[in-house]
Amino acid sequence: MARHPASVNLVAVTSRVGAEARRARNKHAGGVLWLTGLPGAGKTTLALGLEQRLFEAGCQTYVLDGDNIRGGLSSDLGFGPADRNENIRRVGEVAALFADAGLIVITAFISPYRADRATARRAGGPAFHEIYVKAPLQVCEARDPKGHYRLARTGQLAEFTGVGAPYEAPEAPELTVETDMLSVEECLARLMEFVRARLIRA
Amino acid sequence: MARHPASVNLVAVTSRVGAEARRARNKHAGGVLWLTGLPGAGKTTLALGLEQRLFEAGCQTYVLDGDNIRGGLSSDLGFGPADRNENIRRVGEVAALFADAGLIVITAFISPYRADRATARRAGGPAFHEIYVKAPLQVCEARDPKGHYRLARTGQLAEFTGVGAPYEAPEAPELTVETDMLSVEECLARLMEFVRARLIRA
Repeated sequence: MARHPASVNLVAVTSRVGAEARRARNKHAGGVLWLTGLPGAGKTTLALGLEQRLFEAGCQTYVLDGDNIRGGLSSDLGFGPADRNENIRRVGEVAALFADAGLIVITAFISPYRADRATARRAGGPAFHEIYVKAPLQVCEARDPKGHYRLARTGQLAEFTGVGAPYEAPEAPELTVETDMLSVEECLARLMEFVRARLIRA
Repeated sequence: MARHPASVNLVAVTSRVGAEARRARNKHAGGVLWLTGLPGAGKTTLALGLEQRLFEAGCQTYVLDGDNIRGGLSSDLGFGPADRNENIRRVGEVAALFADAGLIVITAFISPYRADRATARRAGGPAFHEIYVKAPLQVCEARDPKGHYRLARTGQLAEFTGVGAPYEAPEAPELTVETDMLSVEECLARLMEFVRARLIRA
């Protein structure tokens, strides 16, 4: 039964399943949809809604957000500036892996700094698409879905984006959805049209 | 055109696409196939071969290995003990995310320490399967596909697993493939049978 010790290497498969094969199988390209915006702008709502729509349309899709990143991959990180940078760096790298695996991965993180989003863009390469989930601060603050704005205004939450820390708006996002002007359905329709044009029909 | 500021939250989609929906779509469960073994045991060969077979069988699959992790997600880490632990921890978390997304993800890392593999198992939960890619040290050293054993023996590579650092063999792996006893084809057949039983037919 024993084989030549080096037999494993003699017939080594050295190539991975490539992007084209995955694309042909899935009938869409892999890609990163990087949602950025103020707290309360609607990132999570749109991410989960878009995942649902894409799944129903037959796509391979997944959402990365605080819920599945902060308790696991980034559980060693806090919320100070350096740790927030590192968190976004890691999400950018993981999103790039998902896109390489052929999925349409949607990320939902405030990601307030241009430099951090540029890092994520470098990791994702041409698969990366920045989507600005845009709403005025006063609208986001009125929504205050998690009560964080109230805490920030009363000094109980330091360095909260939009109050004690800046949000650097995207300068040239691939898409902007204005959640104070459009309904959720309208936002999702714009997002689906974008994905169809860039990752499905393309 | 303007809507009530809180409209996004009024119709929020709060549920993710679940494991059962993904499984029904893909016709297999998501899972982590965690390959562990000495350098030169055949982990990469089997990982890439298995990815190919699974893809041809219609599965959603992806390989995580040094090639796509060390230059990206773990580019901030070195090869000292603490950094190697952290690298394996991150791979365990990323693998768990891929399994949650419905993929059969194959990891190919030496991962020499039981404690680190236990951490990866906790991250993956029931989706985690430890696969011992087993070959005697002298066989792996004779293969020496990357020339690392030679460097380690001549003192040019410190803490190389099997020479200057220990390999802690799995005590209860879900599967063992003995790459010195079986051909690559035979190993892949065993792996495919395992995946069919645990993730496809199950």
